[in-house]
Amino acid sequence: MSASASLPTSLDSALRSIAGELPAEAYTTDPDILASYRTDHAPFCPSGIPAALVRPRSTEQVAEVMRRAYEHSVPVVPQAARTGLAGGANAVDGCLLLSVERLDRILEIDTVDQTARAEAGVVNAVFSRAVAEHGLFYPPDPSSWETSTLGGNAATNAGGLCCVKYGVTGDFVRGLTVVLADGTVLRTGRRTAKGVAGYDLTHLFVGSEGTLGVITEVTVALRPAAERPLTAVAFFPTAGAACAVVPDFMADGARPSLLEFMDRPTMDVVSGYQDLGFPSDAGAMLIAQSDRGELARGDLERFARIAESHGGEALVATDPAEAELLLQARRLVGIATERLGSYLADDVCVPRRRLAEMVERLPAIAERHGVRVTTVAHAGDGNVHPHVLFDRNDEGEVQRAHEAFGAIMDLGLALGGTITGEHGVGLLKRDWLAKELGPAGLRVHREVKAALDPRHILNPGKVLAASGTRR
Amino acid sequence: MSASASLPTSLDSALRSIAGELPAEAYTTDPDILASYRTDHAPFCPSGIPAALVRPRSTEQVAEVMRRAYEHSVPVVPQAARTGLAGGANAVDGCLLLSVERLDRILEIDTVDQTARAEAGVVNAVFSRAVAEHGLFYPPDPSSWETSTLGGNAATNAGGLCCVKYGVTGDFVRGLTVVLADGTVLRTGRRTAKGVAGYDLTHLFVGSEGTLGVITEVTVALRPAAERPLTAVAFFPTAGAACAVVPDFMADGARPSLLEFMDRPTMDVVSGYQDLGFPSDAGAMLIAQSDRGELARGDLERFARIAESHGGEALVATDPAEAELLLQARRLVGIATERLGSYLADDVCVPRRRLAEMVERLPAIAERHGVRVTTVAHAGDGNVHPHVLFDRNDEGEVQRAHEAFGAIMDLGLALGGTITGEHGVGLLKRDWLAKELGPAGLRVHREVKAALDPRHILNPGKVLAASGTRR
Repeated sequence: MSASASLPTSLDSALRSIAGELPAEAYTTDPDILASYRTDHAPFCPSGIPAALVRPRSTEQVAEVMRRAYEHSVPVVPQAARTGLAGGANAVDGCLLLSVERLDRILEIDTVDQTARAEAGVVNAVFSRAVAEHGLFYPPDPSSWETSTLGGNAATNAGGLCCVKYGVTGDFVRGLTVVLADGTVLRTGRRTAKGVAGYDLTHLFVGSEGTLGVITEVTVALRPAAERPLTAVAFFPTAGAACAVVPDFMADGARPSLLEFMDRPTMDVVSGYQDLGFPSDAGAMLIAQSDRGELARGDLERFARIAESHGGEALVATDPAEAELLLQARRLVGIATERLGSYLADDVCVPRRRLAEMVERLPAIAERHGVRVTTVAHAGDGNVHPHVLFDRNDEGEVQRAHEAFGAIMDLGLALGGTITGEHGVGLLKRDWLAKELGPAGLRVHREVKAALDPRHILNPGKVLAASGTRR
Repeated sequence: MSASASLPTSLDSALRSIAGELPAEAYTTDPDILASYRTDHAPFCPSGIPAALVRPRSTEQVAEVMRRAYEHSVPVVPQAARTGLAGGANAVDGCLLLSVERLDRILEIDTVDQTARAEAGVVNAVFSRAVAEHGLFYPPDPSSWETSTLGGNAATNAGGLCCVKYGVTGDFVRGLTVVLADGTVLRTGRRTAKGVAGYDLTHLFVGSEGTLGVITEVTVALRPAAERPLTAVAFFPTAGAACAVVPDFMADGARPSLLEFMDRPTMDVVSGYQDLGFPSDAGAMLIAQSDRGELARGDLERFARIAESHGGEALVATDPAEAELLLQARRLVGIATERLGSYLADDVCVPRRRLAEMVERLPAIAERHGVRVTTVAHAGDGNVHPHVLFDRNDEGEVQRAHEAFGAIMDLGLALGGTITGEHGVGLLKRDWLAKELGPAGLRVHREVKAALDPRHILNPGKVLAASGTRR
């Protein structure tokens, strides 16, 4: 289907019907606005021409929109902050973009049970600060946390730096309000610490990237405020030596609250942006934090000893200001890399024992495909983000970058890993997903999709190819 | 359908076909053996007459059995150690009992990545001891852990005493091998710390009680061995005072590794079995543990202070032997209660802030229905186990016990809780599940069930009523 100035009559009448259900400000077909909502942050993912954008303010309005869309079989692409990196929120031709960004109310913070309930469009940072005012801590911290939303984080099962200790978004989601394809409002899960009443539908929707329902509300578990972390850094002669520290340190029970890896090419990218005084002979570095209060210093001293046993030079920060400076190196990676032009951020996750091998084999992939690859990793989780840099104006290089991107995923799979540790599948990795799942896994995915979205109107073509999804 | 000496021809030919695929020792129709496999540990749950029992030794044999059962539409009831408390493993008339107890191999213990892979029939205690030999710790510890299996624990998402700190079985399951209704072998999940490739099918099967597939293998996360815990006990004038300690203590970040509640009636039951010197004027007690090494004593001193602020008298054990004695009180509850005759073990879970109210309202329910109710709770999780005691030979009392059992669940729901924190739905709570889920939740459950088990042969009538499950 291709949308244009003259919409097909059936779509036109569907849109009229949807618009009629919403306040005027919640519905638009303004081409400039639509254009600005067409894509998320994934580079080089196709996006279609949307027919309209709705920005409802309540679950009930979302339900009304879905009822009409279902009735007329209009494809719907759910969106929140569109900070995703896999094209999962990109428009498809003739679709209705359904943004939950205006569902932005924090509904409840329960300090006794340490849970909270909020609408899907609440920004992670706004929420995290609100609970912090009550002495509580919401750990999921994707890099996008200043702009991404609780609903988008849940829909993609977003990760972050502190997953290594606290887990990913899904580990904190206890219940959801979801609007199903036909507009039915479903409440899943519980607000209690435990519960096994029926199937775990909550985690079926978490990470389903808008293909099974529209998340409009989340109930999450919180934790008591963490202690201020201590920080250490270690520099190593080679990337392999740095990675070899990881399984040793993780296995001894230290429970670091952060354990990040940066290779030399990444250090050079950061140095090109701001000189942080990295040793010129270091081939890679690790940054570790522990927030275990009285135990933190011991944790980091253990880290330093293990680092030194692998030929590293380690430094434990003596105060928060020094710690902040060490962490700055990691924080600058994104902005320093963006300055260099276009890049594809890969996101494979491998068993920790294979981390060194993964990282050591990346330069050969870069060389083979004639592209530059810089690598950071949430090392404690084995979650590697090789950035494939390229000149977007050089068609051949764009092609080679995509090939390198694919070769990195193939390597991750060969090492017993997954094609995506935290960014999701969207459009970007759809073809690789089939490779990871295999025929039986793909079949069950399609069966579940068909059961919950029988008309295939929810985010069609994302995660699973649209063709062949009908039974 | 009712099975008898002369089976319906179609079932008979199905059974011949299944028997033909298996070694002779893996298939039996011996009525004495069948009788001993008819039920799990749930009292007063109906069970049918099975047609045969198969005990395969491999995923491939399970797959072969399911292919034949599917072909002939023979109902299959998956079983493991049958220690469940909800009738989930009970036979239905004319079914094939499919026991995974002989799938008992530990396949891999990875000390570097701290994961393990094992077949579904491996006994929890056998597995836990095997990983302990490598300095590792598998936390899920249902009371049945000496006999129940990893596969059964996963199928029911079993809880236990240490959930309060470490979480339930599902929190440790990273991947599964599942044989689907038609015999297809599905591998779900990952072995990496993180992963978001596709839908979370792993946790759809975890807790689905054999209604969506037969779990034949599990991949679980392990932890480094925990420190030996310190233990404290506190006695309170009333049950309400004891419960009021819980949210205060849990909210301050102590992360106890155990926090158990026993009411006076339970203390009396235990005292009747073995005199542990409980104070005669105590209305309830709490037992707390912390395994945070150097921090444990501070945690328990905080517990003691909070207990005293609620009118309790607390004692922190000074050595492991004393600690063992304190914990003995909790360990004897099961055996001491069983001596008294029949009981229904309820399993509601409420928000911690409602725990005191839940427990304080139980005596009125007991009185109203003329039964005795003794209550223990995994207090830190708000997971309450009221035991409804009754004389099974007194038909009126049996009836009143069931009414009290239901009233307890209604109270749990009214307090924002769930009808089952860890025991599951099975047959026992099927009707209450509908109440908890509501129409939309029930509909999605049925859609998922129909998608994965279109012929409704997998554990029919468990979790969801068989009638109306077809779309």
